[in-house]
Amino acid sequence: MRLKLLEDRIRKEGKLFPGNIVKVDGFINQKIDVSLLREMGKEFARLFKDEGVNKILTVEASGIAFACATGMEMGCDVVFAKKSGHKNIGNDLYSEKVFSYTKGVEYDIVVSKEHIGPSDRLLIIDDFMAVGNAAKGLVRMAEKAGCEVAGIGIVIEKGFQTGGKELREMGYRVESLAIIDKIDENGITFR
Amino acid sequence: MRLKLLEDRIRKEGKLFPGNIVKVDGFINQKIDVSLLREMGKEFARLFKDEGVNKILTVEASGIAFACATGMEMGCDVVFAKKSGHKNIGNDLYSEKVFSYTKGVEYDIVVSKEHIGPSDRLLIIDDFMAVGNAAKGLVRMAEKAGCEVAGIGIVIEKGFQTGGKELREMGYRVESLAIIDKIDENGITFR
Repeated sequence: MRLKLLEDRIRKEGKLFPGNIVKVDGFINQKIDVSLLREMGKEFARLFKDEGVNKILTVEASGIAFACATGMEMGCDVVFAKKSGHKNIGNDLYSEKVFSYTKGVEYDIVVSKEHIGPSDRLLIIDDFMAVGNAAKGLVRMAEKAGCEVAGIGIVIEKGFQTGGKELREMGYRVESLAIIDKIDENGITFR
Repeated sequence: MRLKLLEDRIRKEGKLFPGNIVKVDGFINQKIDVSLLREMGKEFARLFKDEGVNKILTVEASGIAFACATGMEMGCDVVFAKKSGHKNIGNDLYSEKVFSYTKGVEYDIVVSKEHIGPSDRLLIIDDFMAVGNAAKGLVRMAEKAGCEVAGIGIVIEKGFQTGGKELREMGYRVESLAIIDKIDENGITFR
Protein backbone atom coordinates (compact mmCIF):
# COMPACT_ATOMS: atom_id res chain seq x y z
CA MET A 1 0.00 0.00 0.00
CA ARG A 2 1.59 3.28 -1.09
CA LEU A 3 0.72 6.77 0.01
CA LYS A 4 -0.49 8.51 -3.14
CA LEU A 5 -0.21 11.92 -1.49
CA LEU A 6 3.53 11.33 -1.06
CA GLU A 7 4.06 9.96 -4.58
CA ASP A 8 2.29 12.98 -6.05
CA ARG A 9 4.44 15.32 -4.01
CA ILE A 10 7.68 13.56 -5.03
CA ARG A 11 6.61 13.74 -8.69
CA LYS A 12 5.75 17.42 -8.39
CA GLU A 13 8.57 18.74 -6.20
CA GLY A 14 11.32 16.11 -6.12
CA LYS A 15 14.43 17.40 -7.87
CA LEU A 16 16.26 14.86 -10.01
CA PHE A 17 20.05 14.78 -10.24
CA PRO A 18 22.49 12.50 -12.07
CA GLY A 19 23.22 9.24 -10.29
CA ASN A 20 19.58 8.38 -9.55
CA ILE A 21 19.40 11.07 -6.91
CA VAL A 22 16.06 12.61 -6.03
CA LYS A 23 16.13 15.50 -3.60
CA VAL A 24 13.08 15.99 -1.41
CA ASP A 25 14.47 18.62 0.94
CA GLY A 26 11.45 20.84 0.25
CA PHE A 27 9.02 18.62 2.18
CA ILE A 28 10.93 15.68 3.78
CA ASN A 29 14.47 16.26 4.92
CA GLN A 30 15.15 19.89 5.51
CA LYS A 31 11.79 21.55 5.26
CA ILE A 32 9.11 19.24 6.61
CA ASP A 33 5.50 19.66 5.48
CA VAL A 34 3.59 19.06 8.69
CA SER A 35 0.31 18.04 7.00
CA LEU A 36 2.13 15.41 4.99
CA LEU A 37 4.07 14.41 8.12
CA ARG A 38 0.83 13.80 9.99
CA GLU A 39 -0.57 11.71 7.12
CA MET A 40 2.60 9.66 7.00
CA GLY A 41 2.41 9.03 10.74
CA LYS A 42 -1.20 7.90 10.33
CA GLU A 43 -0.32 5.59 7.46
CA PHE A 44 2.53 3.90 9.34
CA ALA A 45 0.21 3.53 12.34
CA ARG A 46 -2.47 1.94 10.11
CA LEU A 47 0.00 -0.42 8.44
CA PHE A 48 1.53 -1.69 11.68
CA LYS A 49 -1.48 -1.48 14.00
CA ASP A 50 -1.75 -5.27 14.46
CA GLU A 51 1.95 -5.90 15.03
CA GLY A 52 2.00 -5.35 18.80
CA VAL A 53 4.47 -2.48 18.56
CA ASN A 54 5.32 -0.82 21.89
CA LYS A 55 8.22 1.43 20.86
CA ILE A 56 9.61 3.14 17.77
CA LEU A 57 13.34 3.07 16.96
CA THR A 58 14.97 5.46 14.50
CA VAL A 59 18.31 7.19 13.95
CA GLU A 60 19.11 10.88 14.07
CA ALA A 61 18.59 13.21 12.40
CA SER A 62 16.03 13.03 9.63
CA GLY A 63 14.28 9.90 10.88
CA ILE A 64 13.17 11.64 14.06
CA ALA A 65 10.26 13.61 12.56
CA PHE A 66 8.63 10.52 11.02
CA ALA A 67 9.28 8.37 14.07
CA CYS A 68 7.64 10.99 16.32
CA ALA A 69 4.63 11.47 14.03
CA THR A 70 4.14 7.69 13.99
CA GLY A 71 4.75 7.35 17.72
CA MET A 72 2.16 10.04 18.48
CA GLU A 73 -0.42 8.17 16.35
CA MET A 74 0.36 4.78 17.86
CA GLY A 75 0.91 5.95 21.44
CA CYS A 76 4.43 4.49 21.38
CA ASP A 77 7.51 6.27 22.70
CA VAL A 78 10.38 6.95 20.31
CA VAL A 79 14.05 6.10 20.78
CA PHE A 80 16.55 7.58 18.40
CA ALA A 81 20.05 6.20 17.92
CA LYS A 82 22.69 8.89 18.04
CA LYS A 83 25.61 9.11 15.71
CA SER A 84 28.77 8.83 17.76
CA GLY A 85 30.67 11.80 19.09
CA HIS A 86 28.24 12.67 21.85
CA LYS A 87 30.10 12.92 25.10
CA ASN A 88 27.07 13.12 27.35
CA ILE A 89 25.27 9.91 26.46
CA GLY A 90 27.02 7.62 28.98
CA ASN A 91 29.02 4.46 28.46
CA ASP A 92 26.53 1.65 28.70
CA LEU A 93 25.61 1.58 25.03
CA TYR A 94 24.61 -0.63 22.18
CA SER A 95 26.76 0.39 19.23
CA GLU A 96 26.73 -0.59 15.54
CA LYS A 97 28.81 0.51 12.58
CA VAL A 98 26.92 1.87 9.56
CA PHE A 99 28.35 2.83 6.20
CA SER A 100 26.58 5.87 4.80
CA TYR A 101 25.95 5.50 1.10
CA THR A 102 25.10 9.22 0.82
CA LYS A 103 28.10 10.59 2.68
CA GLY A 104 30.63 7.90 1.79
CA VAL A 105 31.77 7.40 5.39
CA GLU A 106 31.37 4.84 8.14
CA TYR A 107 29.92 6.02 11.42
CA ASP A 108 28.73 4.51 14.69
CA ILE A 109 25.16 4.57 15.89
CA VAL A 110 24.59 4.23 19.61
CA VAL A 111 21.64 3.73 21.94
CA SER A 112 21.82 3.67 25.72
CA LYS A 113 21.08 0.21 27.11
CA GLU A 114 18.45 1.80 29.32
CA HIS A 115 16.18 2.57 26.40
CA ILE A 116 15.66 -0.72 24.54
CA GLY A 117 15.50 -4.27 25.84
CA PRO A 118 13.89 -7.72 25.74
CA SER A 119 10.43 -6.41 26.63
CA ASP A 120 10.30 -4.26 23.47
CA ARG A 121 8.63 -5.02 20.18
CA LEU A 122 10.07 -2.33 17.93
CA LEU A 123 8.93 -0.60 14.81
CA ILE A 124 12.00 0.76 13.01
CA ILE A 125 11.30 3.99 11.10
CA ASP A 126 13.57 5.92 8.75
CA ASP A 127 13.18 8.47 5.98
CA PHE A 128 15.17 6.83 3.19
CA MET A 129 16.30 3.38 2.25
CA ALA A 130 18.71 2.59 -0.57
CA VAL A 131 21.18 -0.18 0.24
CA GLY A 132 19.57 -0.27 3.67
CA ASN A 133 22.67 0.10 5.84
CA ALA A 134 21.03 2.30 8.44
CA ALA A 135 17.97 0.04 8.74
CA LYS A 136 20.18 -3.05 8.93
CA GLY A 137 22.26 -1.39 11.66
CA LEU A 138 19.12 -0.64 13.64
CA VAL A 139 17.90 -4.24 13.17
CA ARG A 140 21.24 -5.65 14.41
CA MET A 141 21.14 -3.30 17.39
CA ALA A 142 17.54 -4.20 18.24
CA GLU A 143 18.27 -7.91 18.11
CA LYS A 144 21.45 -7.65 20.19
CA ALA A 145 19.34 -5.83 22.76
CA GLY A 146 16.93 -8.78 22.78
CA CYS A 147 14.08 -6.82 21.19
CA GLU A 148 11.73 -8.20 18.60
CA VAL A 149 11.55 -6.31 15.32
CA ALA A 150 7.86 -5.95 14.49
CA GLY A 151 8.53 -4.18 11.20
CA ILE A 152 10.39 -1.53 9.29
CA GLY A 153 8.66 1.59 7.96
CA ILE A 154 10.44 3.69 5.35
CA VAL A 155 9.22 6.97 3.87
CA ILE A 156 10.97 6.62 0.49
CA GLU A 157 12.58 3.40 -0.70
CA LYS A 158 14.83 3.27 -3.74
CA GLY A 159 13.46 0.04 -5.13
CA PHE A 160 16.25 -0.22 -7.71
CA GLN A 161 18.71 -0.68 -4.88
CA THR A 162 19.04 -3.74 -2.70
CA GLY A 163 18.11 -2.78 0.88
CA GLY A 164 14.37 -3.42 0.79
CA LYS A 165 14.67 -6.68 -1.12
CA GLU A 166 17.33 -8.03 1.24
CA LEU A 167 15.44 -7.12 4.41
CA ARG A 168 12.21 -8.65 3.05
CA GLU A 169 14.09 -11.82 2.14
CA MET A 170 15.46 -11.91 5.69
CA GLY A 171 11.80 -12.11 6.80
CA TYR A 172 11.19 -8.58 8.01
CA ARG A 173 8.00 -6.78 7.16
CA VAL A 174 9.16 -3.66 5.30
CA GLU A 175 6.53 -1.07 4.39
CA SER A 176 7.60 1.93 2.33
CA LEU A 177 5.24 4.83 1.70
CA ALA A 178 6.77 5.34 -1.74
CA ILE A 179 9.01 2.97 -3.68
CA ILE A 180 10.92 4.48 -6.57
CA ASP A 181 11.67 1.81 -9.14
CA LYS A 182 13.27 3.95 -11.82
CA ILE A 183 14.52 7.47 -12.40
CA ASP A 184 15.21 8.36 -16.02
CA GLU A 185 14.57 11.01 -18.68
CA ASN A 186 10.83 10.40 -18.32
CA GLY A 187 10.93 11.17 -14.61
CA ILE A 188 10.17 8.88 -11.71
CA THR A 189 8.49 5.46 -11.93
CA PHE A 190 6.91 4.26 -8.71
CA ARG A 191 6.29 0.59 -7.94
CA MET B 1 4.19 30.12 32.12
CA ARG B 2 5.93 26.83 32.86
CA LEU B 3 4.75 23.34 32.02
CA LYS B 4 4.29 21.61 35.36
CA LEU B 5 4.10 18.19 33.69
CA LEU B 6 7.64 18.72 32.40
CA GLU B 7 9.02 20.07 35.69
CA ASP B 8 7.59 17.07 37.54
CA ARG B 9 9.16 14.70 35.07
CA ILE B 10 12.57 16.39 35.29
CA ARG B 11 12.39 16.22 39.08
CA LYS B 12 11.40 12.56 39.01
CA GLU B 13 13.60 11.19 36.21
CA GLY B 14 16.31 13.77 35.49
CA LYS B 15 19.71 12.40 36.44
CA LEU B 16 22.07 14.90 38.10
CA PHE B 17 25.80 14.90 37.42
CA PRO B 18 28.66 17.13 38.61
CA GLY B 19 28.99 20.38 36.70
CA ASN B 20 25.30 21.30 36.84
CA ILE B 21 24.46 18.63 34.31
CA VAL B 22 20.98 17.15 34.25
CA LYS B 23 20.40 14.28 31.89
CA VAL B 24 16.91 13.86 30.49
CA ASP B 25 17.65 11.21 27.88
CA GLY B 26 14.84 9.06 29.28
CA PHE B 27 12.07 11.32 27.96
CA ILE B 28 13.59 14.22 25.96
CA ASN B 29 16.75 13.57 24.02
CA GLN B 30 17.20 9.92 23.30
CA LYS B 31 13.96 8.32 24.34
CA ILE B 32 11.07 10.70 23.65
CA ASP B 33 7.83 10.36 25.61
CA VAL B 34 5.22 11.01 22.94
CA SER B 35 2.46 12.08 25.36
CA LEU B 36 4.76 14.68 26.87
CA LEU B 37 5.91 15.64 23.37
CA ARG B 38 2.34 16.32 22.31
CA GLU B 39 1.70 18.44 25.43
CA MET B 40 4.86 20.43 24.79
CA GLY B 41 3.81 21.08 21.19
CA LYS B 42 0.42 22.26 22.45
CA GLU B 43 2.00 24.55 25.03
CA PHE B 44 4.36 26.19 22.52
CA ALA B 45 1.40 26.62 20.16
CA ARG B 46 -0.63 28.25 22.93
CA LEU B 47 2.19 30.55 23.98
CA PHE B 48 2.95 31.80 20.47
CA LYS B 49 -0.53 31.65 18.92
CA ASP B 50 -0.84 35.44 18.52
CA GLU B 51 2.63 36.00 17.09
CA GLY B 52 1.79 35.47 13.42
CA VAL B 53 4.18 32.54 13.08
CA ASN B 54 4.19 30.87 9.66
CA LYS B 55 7.20 28.56 9.98
CA ILE B 56 9.26 26.81 12.65
CA LEU B 57 13.06 26.81 12.55
CA THR B 58 15.18 24.36 14.56
CA VAL B 59 18.51 22.57 14.31
CA GLU B 60 19.20 18.86 14.01
CA ALA B 61 19.01 16.52 15.77
CA SER B 62 17.22 16.78 19.06
CA GLY B 63 15.28 19.96 18.23
CA ILE B 64 13.40 18.22 15.42
CA ALA B 65 10.90 16.32 17.56
CA PHE B 66 9.75 19.45 19.45
CA ALA B 67 9.69 21.58 16.32
CA CYS B 68 7.51 19.01 14.54
CA ALA B 69 5.12 18.58 17.48
CA THR B 70 4.74 22.37 17.62
CA GLY B 71 4.43 22.72 13.85
CA MET B 72 1.69 20.09 13.72
CA GLU B 73 -0.26 21.98 16.41
CA MET B 74 0.21 25.37 14.74
CA GLY B 75 -0.13 24.20 11.14
CA CYS B 76 3.33 25.59 10.36
CA ASP B 77 5.96 23.76 8.37
CA VAL B 78 9.30 23.01 10.00
CA VAL B 79 12.77 23.78 8.67
CA PHE B 80 15.74 22.24 10.40
CA ALA B 81 19.28 23.55 10.04
CA LYS B 82 21.76 20.80 9.30
CA LYS B 83 25.15 20.50 10.87
CA SER B 84 27.72 20.73 8.11
CA GLY B 85 29.19 17.70 6.40
CA HIS B 86 26.16 16.88 4.30
CA LYS B 87 27.18 16.62 0.70
CA ASN B 88 23.69 16.49 -0.78
CA ILE B 89 22.24 19.74 0.49
CA GLY B 90 23.38 21.99 -2.36
CA ASN B 91 25.53 25.09 -2.31
CA ASP B 92 23.13 27.95 -1.97
CA LEU B 93 23.09 28.05 1.79
CA TYR B 94 22.85 30.27 4.81
CA SER B 95 25.62 29.21 7.17
CA GLU B 96 26.49 30.18 10.74
CA LYS B 97 29.19 29.01 13.13
CA VAL B 98 28.03 27.69 16.49
CA PHE B 99 30.21 26.70 19.44
CA SER B 100 28.75 23.70 21.23
CA TYR B 101 29.02 24.08 24.98
CA THR B 102 28.17 20.40 25.46
CA LYS B 103 30.61 18.95 22.95
CA GLY B 104 33.35 21.56 23.19
CA VAL B 105 33.62 22.05 19.42
CA GLU B 106 32.62 24.62 16.85
CA TYR B 107 30.40 23.48 14.02
CA ASP B 108 28.52 25.02 11.12
CA ILE B 109 24.77 25.04 10.81
CA VAL B 110 23.33 25.41 7.32
CA VAL B 111 19.93 25.98 5.74
CA SER B 112 19.20 26.04 2.03
CA LYS B 113 18.25 29.54 0.85
CA GLU B 114 15.12 28.00 -0.67
CA HIS B 115 13.60 27.27 2.70
CA ILE B 116 13.60 30.57 4.62
CA GLY B 117 13.22 34.13 3.39
CA PRO B 118 11.72 37.59 3.88
CA SER B 119 8.13 36.34 3.82
CA ASP B 120 8.72 34.23 6.93
CA ARG B 121 7.90 35.00 10.53
CA LEU B 122 9.75 32.29 12.37
CA LEU B 123 9.36 30.56 15.67
CA ILE B 124 12.74 29.13 16.70
CA ILE B 125 12.45 25.92 18.73
CA ASP B 126 15.18 23.95 20.48
CA ASP B 127 15.39 21.40 23.25
CA PHE B 128 18.03 22.98 25.49
CA MET B 129 19.42 26.42 26.12
CA ALA B 130 22.44 27.11 28.30
CA VAL B 131 24.71 29.85 26.93
CA GLY B 132 22.34 29.98 23.97
CA ASN B 133 24.82 29.55 21.15
CA ALA B 134 22.56 27.39 19.00
CA ALA B 135 19.58 29.72 19.43
CA LYS B 136 21.74 32.77 18.71
CA GLY B 137 23.09 31.08 15.57
CA LEU B 138 19.54 30.39 14.40
CA VAL B 139 18.55 34.00 15.13
CA ARG B 140 21.52 35.36 13.13
CA MET B 141 20.67 33.01 10.27
CA ALA B 142 16.99 33.98 10.29
CA GLU B 143 17.81 37.67 10.23
CA LYS B 144 20.41 37.33 7.46
CA ALA B 145 17.70 35.59 5.45
CA GLY B 146 15.42 38.59 6.01
CA CYS B 147 12.99 36.69 8.25
CA GLU B 148 11.35 38.13 11.31
CA VAL B 149 11.90 36.21 14.55
CA ALA B 150 8.51 35.92 16.23
CA GLY B 151 9.91 34.14 19.26
CA ILE B 152 12.11 31.45 20.69
CA GLY B 153 10.69 28.36 22.39
CA ILE B 154 12.98 26.21 24.51
CA VAL B 155 12.10 22.96 26.25
CA ILE B 156 14.61 23.26 29.12
CA GLU B 157 16.52 26.44 29.88
CA LYS B 158 19.42 26.53 32.30
CA GLY B 159 18.50 29.79 33.97
CA PHE B 160 21.81 29.99 35.82
CA GLN B 161 23.55 30.38 32.47
CA THR B 162 23.42 33.45 30.27
CA GLY B 163 21.63 32.51 27.03
CA GLY B 164 18.03 33.23 27.98
CA LYS B 165 18.85 36.48 29.77
CA GLU B 166 20.90 37.76 26.85
CA LEU B 167 18.30 36.91 24.23
CA ARG B 168 15.51 38.49 26.30
CA GLU B 169 17.62 41.63 26.74
CA MET B 170 18.11 41.72 22.97
CA GLY B 171 14.32 41.99 22.75
CA TYR B 172 13.35 38.47 21.74
CA ARG B 173 10.41 36.74 23.32
CA VAL B 174 11.92 33.59 24.85
CA GLU B 175 9.53 31.06 26.37
CA SER B 176 10.98 28.04 28.12
CA LEU B 177 8.77 25.17 29.29
CA ALA B 178 11.07 24.64 32.28
CA ILE B 179 13.76 26.95 33.63
CA ILE B 180 16.27 25.38 35.98
CA ASP B 181 17.68 28.04 38.29
CA LYS B 182 19.81 25.86 40.51
CA ILE B 183 21.08 22.31 40.80
CA ASP B 184 22.60 21.41 44.14
CA GLU B 185 22.56 18.76 46.87
CA ASN B 186 18.85 19.44 47.43
CA GLY B 187 18.06 18.69 43.81
CA ILE B 188 16.67 21.00 41.16
CA THR B 189 15.16 24.44 41.78
CA PHE B 190 12.88 25.69 39.01
CA ARG B 191 12.17 29.37 38.41
